[in-house]
Amino acid sequence: MSWFQSETAVEPVDASRWTAHVSDRWNIGDNPNGGYLAAIAVGALCRISPHPDPISVTAHFLRPGGGGQPAEVLADVVRSGRTITTARASLVQGGTARVEVLAAFADLSASSSPIDEALSVPRPVVPAPESCVSRSDTEQGVALPILDRLDVRIDPGQARAGQAGAAEVTGWIRLADGAEADVRSLLLFADAFPPSLFGLLGAVGWVPSVELTVHVRSRPAPGWVLGRFSTSDLRDGRMVEDGALWDSSGELVARSRQLGLLLPR
Amino acid sequence: MSWFQSETAVEPVDASRWTAHVSDRWNIGDNPNGGYLAAIAVGALCRISPHPDPISVTAHFLRPGGGGQPAEVLADVVRSGRTITTARASLVQGGTARVEVLAAFADLSASSSPIDEALSVPRPVVPAPESCVSRSDTEQGVALPILDRLDVRIDPGQARAGQAGAAEVTGWIRLADGAEADVRSLLLFADAFPPSLFGLLGAVGWVPSVELTVHVRSRPAPGWVLGRFSTSDLRDGRMVEDGALWDSSGELVARSRQLGLLLPR
Repeated sequence: MSWFQSETAVEPVDASRWTAHVSDRWNIGDNPNGGYLAAIAVGALCRISPHPDPISVTAHFLRPGGGGQPAEVLADVVRSGRTITTARASLVQGGTARVEVLAAFADLSASSSPIDEALSVPRPVVPAPESCVSRSDTEQGVALPILDRLDVRIDPGQARAGQAGAAEVTGWIRLADGAEADVRSLLLFADAFPPSLFGLLGAVGWVPSVELTVHVRSRPAPGWVLGRFSTSDLRDGRMVEDGALWDSSGELVARSRQLGLLLPR
Repeated sequence: MSWFQSETAVEPVDASRWTAHVSDRWNIGDNPNGGYLAAIAVGALCRISPHPDPISVTAHFLRPGGGGQPAEVLADVVRSGRTITTARASLVQGGTARVEVLAAFADLSASSSPIDEALSVPRPVVPAPESCVSRSDTEQGVALPILDRLDVRIDPGQARAGQAGAAEVTGWIRLADGAEADVRSLLLFADAFPPSLFGLLGAVGWVPSVELTVHVRSRPAPGWVLGRFSTSDLRDGRMVEDGALWDSSGELVARSRQLGLLLPR
């Protein structure tokens, strides 16, 4: 079992309650990564949804999670129809809700339409992973235990804070133990790159996520996943960052958007 | 009181229950517009949130609503912090949940950061509203009672299905009774243009929304609101459409993303 699978595992208590252990190995500084916490909550939803694949996941981050501490996930199906199941979950630690999730599930191996036209966002051209800069070798300003769990390689032209000259970051990502990405790990990949504002503003302070929405388009092929993240909306310290993930076959597999707060250092 | 205000009004039953009447004047075909239903649910949340402005609203559409029928809104604050309140709501009709909402609120008149840098998406250039084509004069294939409530003007180069040659639609929108848009009506504006796929594929069938997320960036200035919507992600009948709204001062006021299903005619 991969680190990702074992460290996001949930055990049933009853029909709508699950227990989990939040590892501290996916921390950004002192707090578990938001995408990691969302992946735990969605793991419980995957167990109760008749449809296998989360295709739209919205997570609201209420309070930081506690790494190395137990958690409970309260999970319910809101409605299950022919093609879509809608479900929600709360991840609770110490009696306090940390993350609230609302998600839609479908079967990504099935087509919901007779229209076979497709549109996609083309994958950007980026140097190969071995020519990129490991995120653990970039300026950080904060301890990143998560980089023992995730291998993140940044485009060498964007590796230093402020170097890109634009609010953009591009690079590769995979699970560090060599396990292949599944649909659920894309939630984590959508929240694991340096904030794209670093490319424009240089090292800023903590950028807590208020909310993250990920749309999964298809199951990823084995291999490295390419991510591009950019911010074109910043006002009064509130930023909206867009992301896209492509698998090793060049297929767009997910897009993300998150609302974050730009706090002082 | 504007039509929008009176037809989205909620009355308290107790601390977490509200009654509403879903009008049939905001229908698309036989069903109330999704953004209209979301605006009713968010109206109840506005009454219980200590922060005034919904800045991130995710609505999942479980079943079509019933126009001309009463509704109940179950609404709860999940957490209220210093700068953000998170809340959720269910809009229920005839004992069945129709829309599920998860939202974050803030005060858009306050800055959350000492960083005064701003980024924005520039407003596209579109002919003036009087040179655009009223949506009620465009090919529809479905009755649109909502166009008595909303004045929607489409760029004349995109008015016919398939004419744009791209999955894009641009135009102007305002409340038809001349009332000015507020933050909550932006949720509705984000769901009131023709599906942008019409510009590429021609008249397709019904495109029901699975989920709509709107990020509100600022309170709109009085006057026409400009909207641009495009789809760059379509696969197996699932489409993800992006939208942006600008106010009459040229300011980006909201962005949206929705997951829809492309059903056969």
